[in-house]
Amino acid sequence: MSPTVPGSSSRQRAPLRPSPPVDRGALQQLLDGPERGLRDRVRTLLANPRFAYTPHVDDATYRATVLDWVRLLAHEGLGALAVPAEFGGGDNPRAFLAAFETIAFHDLSLTIKFGVQFGLFQNSIAMLGTGWHHRKFLPQVGRGELLGGFAMSELGHGSNVRDLETTATYDATAREFVIHTPHGSAHKEWIGNAALHGQMMTVFAQLIVGGTNHGVHALLVPIRHPDGRPCDGVRIEDTGHKEGLNGVDNGRIWFNQVRIPREHLLNRFGDVSADGKYTSSIDNPARRFFTMIGTLVGGRITIGLSALSAVKSALTIAIRYGNRRRQFGEPGKPETALLDYRTHQRRLLPALATTIVLDIALSRMVDRYTAMKSGDTRLVEGLAAGLKAYTTWFAQQAITDARECCGGQGFLAVNRIAVLRRDIDVWTTFEGDNTVLMQLLAKGLLTGYKQEFAEVGVIRHLARRATASLRAHNPLTTRRDDEDHLRDPEAQLALLRYREERLLDAAARRLRSRAKHEDATQAMIDVQDHLMHLATAHVERESFEAVHAEIERAGASLKPLLELLRDTFWAGCIERDMGWYMMSGAVETPKAKAIRYLVNKCIQELRPVAEEITAAFAIPDAVLAAPIAFDPLPTAEGGLRPKA
Amino acid sequence: MSPTVPGSSSRQRAPLRPSPPVDRGALQQLLDGPERGLRDRVRTLLANPRFAYTPHVDDATYRATVLDWVRLLAHEGLGALAVPAEFGGGDNPRAFLAAFETIAFHDLSLTIKFGVQFGLFQNSIAMLGTGWHHRKFLPQVGRGELLGGFAMSELGHGSNVRDLETTATYDATAREFVIHTPHGSAHKEWIGNAALHGQMMTVFAQLIVGGTNHGVHALLVPIRHPDGRPCDGVRIEDTGHKEGLNGVDNGRIWFNQVRIPREHLLNRFGDVSADGKYTSSIDNPARRFFTMIGTLVGGRITIGLSALSAVKSALTIAIRYGNRRRQFGEPGKPETALLDYRTHQRRLLPALATTIVLDIALSRMVDRYTAMKSGDTRLVEGLAAGLKAYTTWFAQQAITDARECCGGQGFLAVNRIAVLRRDIDVWTTFEGDNTVLMQLLAKGLLTGYKQEFAEVGVIRHLARRATASLRAHNPLTTRRDDEDHLRDPEAQLALLRYREERLLDAAARRLRSRAKHEDATQAMIDVQDHLMHLATAHVERESFEAVHAEIERAGASLKPLLELLRDTFWAGCIERDMGWYMMSGAVETPKAKAIRYLVNKCIQELRPVAEEITAAFAIPDAVLAAPIAFDPLPTAEGGLRPKA
Repeated sequence: MSPTVPGSSSRQRAPLRPSPPVDRGALQQLLDGPERGLRDRVRTLLANPRFAYTPHVDDATYRATVLDWVRLLAHEGLGALAVPAEFGGGDNPRAFLAAFETIAFHDLSLTIKFGVQFGLFQNSIAMLGTGWHHRKFLPQVGRGELLGGFAMSELGHGSNVRDLETTATYDATAREFVIHTPHGSAHKEWIGNAALHGQMMTVFAQLIVGGTNHGVHALLVPIRHPDGRPCDGVRIEDTGHKEGLNGVDNGRIWFNQVRIPREHLLNRFGDVSADGKYTSSIDNPARRFFTMIGTLVGGRITIGLSALSAVKSALTIAIRYGNRRRQFGEPGKPETALLDYRTHQRRLLPALATTIVLDIALSRMVDRYTAMKSGDTRLVEGLAAGLKAYTTWFAQQAITDARECCGGQGFLAVNRIAVLRRDIDVWTTFEGDNTVLMQLLAKGLLTGYKQEFAEVGVIRHLARRATASLRAHNPLTTRRDDEDHLRDPEAQLALLRYREERLLDAAARRLRSRAKHEDATQAMIDVQDHLMHLATAHVERESFEAVHAEIERAGASLKPLLELLRDTFWAGCIERDMGWYMMSGAVETPKAKAIRYLVNKCIQELRPVAEEITAAFAIPDAVLAAPIAFDPLPTAEGGLRPKA
Repeated sequence: MSPTVPGSSSRQRAPLRPSPPVDRGALQQLLDGPERGLRDRVRTLLANPRFAYTPHVDDATYRATVLDWVRLLAHEGLGALAVPAEFGGGDNPRAFLAAFETIAFHDLSLTIKFGVQFGLFQNSIAMLGTGWHHRKFLPQVGRGELLGGFAMSELGHGSNVRDLETTATYDATAREFVIHTPHGSAHKEWIGNAALHGQMMTVFAQLIVGGTNHGVHALLVPIRHPDGRPCDGVRIEDTGHKEGLNGVDNGRIWFNQVRIPREHLLNRFGDVSADGKYTSSIDNPARRFFTMIGTLVGGRITIGLSALSAVKSALTIAIRYGNRRRQFGEPGKPETALLDYRTHQRRLLPALATTIVLDIALSRMVDRYTAMKSGDTRLVEGLAAGLKAYTTWFAQQAITDARECCGGQGFLAVNRIAVLRRDIDVWTTFEGDNTVLMQLLAKGLLTGYKQEFAEVGVIRHLARRATASLRAHNPLTTRRDDEDHLRDPEAQLALLRYREERLLDAAARRLRSRAKHEDATQAMIDVQDHLMHLATAHVERESFEAVHAEIERAGASLKPLLELLRDTFWAGCIERDMGWYMMSGAVETPKAKAIRYLVNKCIQELRPVAEEITAAFAIPDAVLAAPIAFDPLPTAEGGLRPKA
């Protein structure tokens, strides 16, 4: 009955496996993908002295510098990569994403300002507009000559976009739309490029035609003359100083009966004829709204990609520092390198594994996104939302840990992690608040579940559940604690899948049982925390499968490393949720202890090759920049601890 | 065999208990303690327009403003509160801590600059110096006329203070000490007040007398003339821009054979006679070092107190905003207040409970600290280290969550949480890196354990362990899932205590078994992650007991609220470590599910009174300042969601 010491049984304490080799070229090829050449071009460009980081400067100078950088990138054709060739672009959305991801090794204000101009403004014209808009605007937008932004969020309605309050009322006599902010707090809030540089905005507004509200549509609204003066009826206010991203000129915009030509309605999904007739290819207003919004899913993918680039910078700096910085140890011997401490390893190395797992998962998402047909967005949307939330929360934590692992040095702006930490915080909020996005994913899974339930019927559903349950509770697996079993991908996947399915099943049943005696909104609120777990489980299982597929394809020089990264990621997920696995009966004590032990084994196997893995991110020295990533911080006698 | 839905059994789903009343006056009295009057005086002072926050300014202006603020506080006598009355002070260390804690409701750069001058510089003179130093320096330091700092950390040795490399060599001929930085990276790093305003530093250096190194001692070294020029042989460099705290002028200091009079050695624990004889009341150099360092434990307490004040500001702002801000809901009804979402409650309300639990635990620590006799510091030191680490990690996470709960608004500097988040980050690093401190606490516990083991002997030890194990594994408690049991403080404490004891026991055994075939350093590294859990368990059990004692003393108007806060804290601790409790056999599935359900029950009971609880922090409106804590952010039709 008395519990044994964790990890003390002989089979759990099997010797460490040798560290896998790191085929740096192959790993970089995997991470860079088919856009390797383009990425290298961007790397070279960013390492150019024109992109040297400015020391800490006032916000005005910082904004001006970032604008210059955006123009330099546009000049190199990077802004227009996704745009069709007939409008001066590269016709390659995948290349655009790769360039964006690489730019995010550099300053994050640059990344976001570039993203506002080309990811949001340009893309909204491309996705929601039609021929006239494309011909008239895309070429100058892609060259960075016409700067603009994406005016969706309002102060009163940030997450709840469908209920935003700006109106676009059609005046059939003048053949114009009238853009209007109906009251004080319905102004556009947090709009990038609005405070200083943007001349035109894609404005989201309730479209009112002949007294009927057709719901949210997007329109192109000029807000500022080339000389910087706001247009008539437009009031712009600077958002002010922020926790981070102060190189981006965010602003607030109020519209007072601003008139724009009828043609400025981005009319792909809903149009208004000159004489004031509304038409749409999608009758259902809700479906129309979600279709429009769905075309913008690429934005969320870029947020995940860029968050991961920031993590790669932070981990590269912290791991290099941890290999060089020594502290404490025995008299007369060199002090111990920070990365040799278990506590240090625990903070940095699982994060390194998760970074590569999420990189692979996001690459798979990019594949699906670029192959996606219009109208076929639902499948991509849910996972894109979940991956955005999961990746950015991970980034927030990983960068915080990396900062702490560099001690006071990490708090210095010049060492960059501190700046990344300030900047990255808002990644969890913009392009959809993370909590809202996770709920969105979970609700999508519930919808799919209900459909399946309706299709296969109750009996077959119950039978399947019973089979799954029997399999999960087979004592031959719930207690197995040998390493071969724990590192078997089929067994690993079975546990992750079991958790996701059980959580989905339970959520559906809890909602059904509550639906009888409570209102629907309250019922959903009651299971929100459960839905967070479900969404997390889904993202983790999907990510695991993406890595698993990559391992199947990988060459012999890469496979063992990827397997170790997968094991590290998997063991960390299970360890975190161990209480749940044990409550459910899918893991019993011997196995639980072995999994906990496996986490420490994996990080010890990773430790000797950690810095080499970060080298495959191929962040140029000039872009990495942090002095602590390069200086060995010499102490007396080459790190020898003086004899007391 | 098939697991049931979490929280679905009828006894687990017992109805919510009514929310407890909040006797705001009594709660504030509990939190403010005997220094209520002083705290109110500081509150009034900070609300004065002279302390109005400056909008975002450049670092130079910010530093000047913070200096003015520090002088205003000194002028009010707040700096010298802890100093003996004969030197112009208040003779009341407890009052100093209360003032410091209250100041931390305001700008954190002010808090730290105030802490450097009075908590570190002044206190090091008081604690490590003797009569001559006290008479000569304390009065002018307490009035803020002589500004100084605390030059301990070096670039090469931050955490490892004992091995720092600056030397203080005695020259018997000149009767002077020669202060010297032996090589480039042995300079003093991160020293507050060094870059601009400090004229004198308490410098920690290896004391060398007649060729013998007597270990680290502290000396008063002038570094800057009143006109701002550095003293001869002193080189000062500005640390530069940081993630936060940019109102503090941190700097680096190099000493090149700088001479100071013999009297400037702070000689309480070690002295050098004019003719060069070293004497000390403590023969053992290691014990001498730790005794000196031990007198500075107050610094760590102030870090915990101020971190918690920052959390109180952030939670007050976020909870007030969550009560006012509405988003989503059913058509034709008011949108739902953010704080009514379970996900929102899960992030803010357990943090609110933990804040009050830690406040009470820190108050108890202050009692022990102020009652502490010199030489009797060991007991206080370990827990002070652990509470510093636990509280600051909690603060980092709670403020990050509070920021996210305020969405984009939270990212704006004017709403203050973003600024708190930037500033608070380094709390986990300074005054001892959190990981190092947690290891320190755990090693202290191991030492105590070994002593006890030696005293009671193996047989009685094993017998006691068997009894504890039997009690913990009694099926009558491991499965109990009724609310009366879960909310019984004796049962709650038993689980926390069981975890702490088991972890301590296991750590000792693991170290013993490794000691046979590995070197001691590696053995300790191998159990570091285990020691982190042990230290956490110790801090949580101690904090729980502090609250438990407070509840015993509390009046009827306060008791139910404190009980709910205790239950919330306890359930959160157990939920997080559920995997361990189940592995150990101390909790079985029905109880595990009931505890998880209890977390949600507790936060629902807390929700209606959350804002009223924050009111007991009594942060003046002018100090809280964030517009989102006051503005209701009106939407059309008073928050009515338009009908689709």
